[in-house]
Amino acid sequence: MNYDHIALPDVSGLSVGIIGGTGPQGRGLAYRFARAGQRVLVGSRSTERGEQAAVELGALPGVAAGTVSGGDNVFAAGADVVVIAVPWEGHRATVAELSPQLAGKIVVDCVNPLGFDKQGPYPLRVEEGSAAEQAATLLPESRVCAAFHHVSAVLLADPEVDAVDLDVLVLGDDRDAALQVQALAGRIAGMRGVFAGRLRNAGQIEALTANLIAINKRYKAHAGIRVTDV
Amino acid sequence: MNYDHIALPDVSGLSVGIIGGTGPQGRGLAYRFARAGQRVLVGSRSTERGEQAAVELGALPGVAAGTVSGGDNVFAAGADVVVIAVPWEGHRATVAELSPQLAGKIVVDCVNPLGFDKQGPYPLRVEEGSAAEQAATLLPESRVCAAFHHVSAVLLADPEVDAVDLDVLVLGDDRDAALQVQALAGRIAGMRGVFAGRLRNAGQIEALTANLIAINKRYKAHAGIRVTDV
Repeated sequence: MNYDHIALPDVSGLSVGIIGGTGPQGRGLAYRFARAGQRVLVGSRSTERGEQAAVELGALPGVAAGTVSGGDNVFAAGADVVVIAVPWEGHRATVAELSPQLAGKIVVDCVNPLGFDKQGPYPLRVEEGSAAEQAATLLPESRVCAAFHHVSAVLLADPEVDAVDLDVLVLGDDRDAALQVQALAGRIAGMRGVFAGRLRNAGQIEALTANLIAINKRYKAHAGIRVTDV
Repeated sequence: MNYDHIALPDVSGLSVGIIGGTGPQGRGLAYRFARAGQRVLVGSRSTERGEQAAVELGALPGVAAGTVSGGDNVFAAGADVVVIAVPWEGHRATVAELSPQLAGKIVVDCVNPLGFDKQGPYPLRVEEGSAAEQAATLLPESRVCAAFHHVSAVLLADPEVDAVDLDVLVLGDDRDAALQVQALAGRIAGMRGVFAGRLRNAGQIEALTANLIAINKRYKAHAGIRVTDV
């Protein structure tokens, strides 16, 4: 059995909300989901900036009219699947605040808790084990997965890049939710969504972003990863 | 600049010692290095078992006569580059014991500190941050790198497998040592050695093995990773 033999659900009808949709990662993901034909709700702390980002994204190549709308983070939390793409510093407060809106929903955490010093990036110790486990603790009524940690914001946002060739590692304890997130990743040209374990194994996936940053520096690349033999 | 543009040294003349060379990972690596033409010194806690493993490895397809010799771990520590491939449980004691022999040498730690329970594998908390940092603490006179965490022992040991297609993530604070380890990885058919950061970022690379085990279970695979855009 390999990747192609695990049936993924049809998620083409699901709307995707992006909490922190005006940051580089969130904006890039919003663009790729919109290009894939998903309805996208861009959220920001400020309604105006969310609306503005939606207008800009809607004008980019490959995005059909009416695909992207914008507003504040509560607006974006109204989507079927909600991606948390805020800076780590604001993670706990933002997630806690949105917990009523996120009840019952699939929540995809893609936040990387990293510190930076003169020697570059390094993983921060997280009390709950990882950003994703922190979200799961704060959102007991939600179906929390972790994914999209290693996508290059630069490649995502570049309209000239037709396919972003990498595997999205998807983690979660709710198998059906994870399958839907895997399917969503697979909607983006070039990507596969590969199941990579339970949430308790999310910490090292988030921290791996520090290594990819080191690789980018050494090789002047926008590195991602592919899983071999799958 | 990408992978091919960083000049790697010629390491074809270096001997490779394997501490724990009779375990699955160590034995598999010994076989691949021998097949690549490196002189290999297989070490074990028992001289007899080290010698026996060397005889068996020397008889495998693709290994030239006289390439592999065996003995105890002190014997293997006499090589130019020494790979630590012992179980995590024995890591601290074995490394500490060999510290006189390993002084001045390039030491490559490939140990993954994992626990297992009913839900599968998970990373163990390591006081020093990672197995590699523990080795570096115990071996202040050695040039400690971390690499070869994600190679499938099954694929390494299978004589029918001509090339093991994956990237070996190499970590280290000593740039020249890391380059030599990258070059050694590149000697094995199918592999590249990609620099992936300093030792303080080794913990998540070791822990990532838990995710690869989860992937192997889900997809019935022998998963490895490739770095994209490099």
